[in-house]
Amino acid sequence: MSVFTPVSADDLHPWLARYCVGRLIHLQGIGEGVENTNYFLSTRQGRYVLTLFERLSQADLPFYLHLMAHLARHGLPCPTPIADRDNEYLNPLHGKPAALITRLPGKAVTEPTARHTAVLGELLASLHLAGQSYGRRLENPRGPRWWHQVTPLLLPRLPGDEAALLRDELAHQSRHRSLELPRGVIHADLFRDNVLFDGEHIGGLIDFYFAGHDVLLFDVAVTVNDWCLAPNLALDPARTQALLQAYQELRPFTPGERQAWPLMLRAAALRFWLSRLYDYHLPRAGELVLVKDPGHFRDMLRRRREEG
Amino acid sequence: MSVFTPVSADDLHPWLARYCVGRLIHLQGIGEGVENTNYFLSTRQGRYVLTLFERLSQADLPFYLHLMAHLARHGLPCPTPIADRDNEYLNPLHGKPAALITRLPGKAVTEPTARHTAVLGELLASLHLAGQSYGRRLENPRGPRWWHQVTPLLLPRLPGDEAALLRDELAHQSRHRSLELPRGVIHADLFRDNVLFDGEHIGGLIDFYFAGHDVLLFDVAVTVNDWCLAPNLALDPARTQALLQAYQELRPFTPGERQAWPLMLRAAALRFWLSRLYDYHLPRAGELVLVKDPGHFRDMLRRRREEG
Repeated sequence: MSVFTPVSADDLHPWLARYCVGRLIHLQGIGEGVENTNYFLSTRQGRYVLTLFERLSQADLPFYLHLMAHLARHGLPCPTPIADRDNEYLNPLHGKPAALITRLPGKAVTEPTARHTAVLGELLASLHLAGQSYGRRLENPRGPRWWHQVTPLLLPRLPGDEAALLRDELAHQSRHRSLELPRGVIHADLFRDNVLFDGEHIGGLIDFYFAGHDVLLFDVAVTVNDWCLAPNLALDPARTQALLQAYQELRPFTPGERQAWPLMLRAAALRFWLSRLYDYHLPRAGELVLVKDPGHFRDMLRRRREEG
Repeated sequence: MSVFTPVSADDLHPWLARYCVGRLIHLQGIGEGVENTNYFLSTRQGRYVLTLFERLSQADLPFYLHLMAHLARHGLPCPTPIADRDNEYLNPLHGKPAALITRLPGKAVTEPTARHTAVLGELLASLHLAGQSYGRRLENPRGPRWWHQVTPLLLPRLPGDEAALLRDELAHQSRHRSLELPRGVIHADLFRDNVLFDGEHIGGLIDFYFAGHDVLLFDVAVTVNDWCLAPNLALDPARTQALLQAYQELRPFTPGERQAWPLMLRAAALRFWLSRLYDYHLPRAGELVLVKDPGHFRDMLRRRREEG
């Protein structure tokens, strides 16, 4: 349950009057997500998502909100914050920073085909191209710097073989990570549940709250590791090729990127293994969220090391 | 036929490559509108309208494009221009300024009910409220200044009773028009064909190319004169009341506006009588557009004068 802060229609009335979206006709809590309180909110004028930011740093919120606005303005199907009468995106609600955000059509696809991954590959390239003209900057909060911060906290909690795997992979990544790879704004969490398909088209790319500045190829690897997975954790060739080909029709890989691809697939598995280990061994106080199994990404990392 | 400048998929390829919307999959000319060349344009990423501006002053285009972007950013269902990789909205195509604009869902309602006019009234109030924070300014190009410019050109071409009607109405408007009425950005052309209904909701308010700064109540009157019309050119009480009530729940009329309402209904009829007379008697060179009958608005003006 992700409604950390309950909001009633009466609570909302004065808050919503700051906006030009008409009168409330429907309000319903959304039982997904772990970082924010979300409600579907309808007026006769449109359908929106009301988000109360529970944990994100207030200082980082403008980066995320303006990023979504920037991408939507460039034709990406991204949620975009609604400005109030004073042209502001954020207004406090029950003491939390809160925003009204467009609601996009479509639903998640759990068993994607190569048609889906081709559409997604093209869109991911568009996102990386549009991000190049975005002026604000925030380091990927789950990038290599974070890996090195959390590893010392995790190593003592891991069985010997997993600790060795983690140490070895970190060393390998440090040794081979090139600074020459093209960088920019990445979504960094483009799993199947963050892409809404509306028929054959993508109606929405959602949940930009892990976005940041990092290697573009890392974003492609995160996406491929989820969308192109075969049951044995290998990559399905048809879906992988469809995604990479569609991506490269808009943004061809550099020679350095082609060389770094196996390394990035390992980096993408490592990043989610680390965050799942962290959530598992060091849960936040009062957390009621379902902790997901870190083993999936440990096994994926092992598989990518064998393949690479 | 409104495709004044034909565009082929091949022509479009380098132009579209400036944007982050993916590759073209469909392009189709739109046979409506009299001022611009319009095409429906689809990519796998989204559905857009390509507009080549044929007649509007290049200096005024930023006012219209940024107005649409401003209103969309405030939650209005308005088309919004797509920015290219350099964050620009306009790029020349075949020597014309051209923009890529979002395509909105829905279709025009020719026989509106009081439910439709209530939804529209609320949305029109939102548009007027959101427009208050728009920073650019352009006088309504078909406002009183224009009436006085074109009347001397038209009077010699009109039969005696029509010339007398026009002279008398202009004098009446000048005598009674108060400078105290709230002003702001108005759509100024919110006829039934410029509102797309998507079920019970409005999917799009379109065609902002007559928008400008003027009396807000004038915009309400233009809208009511089209949406609430009875067969005898009187106003249908149910549709009129539904529109005005929904509007005033968001922006109540001032005492001055309540007093000026009959005057504004006459002004709105006058404005379209004048522009239709102008198009009829002084057609632009090379114009192939169907000239609409000025008599509809002459008769409406007479009716409003009897009522007022």
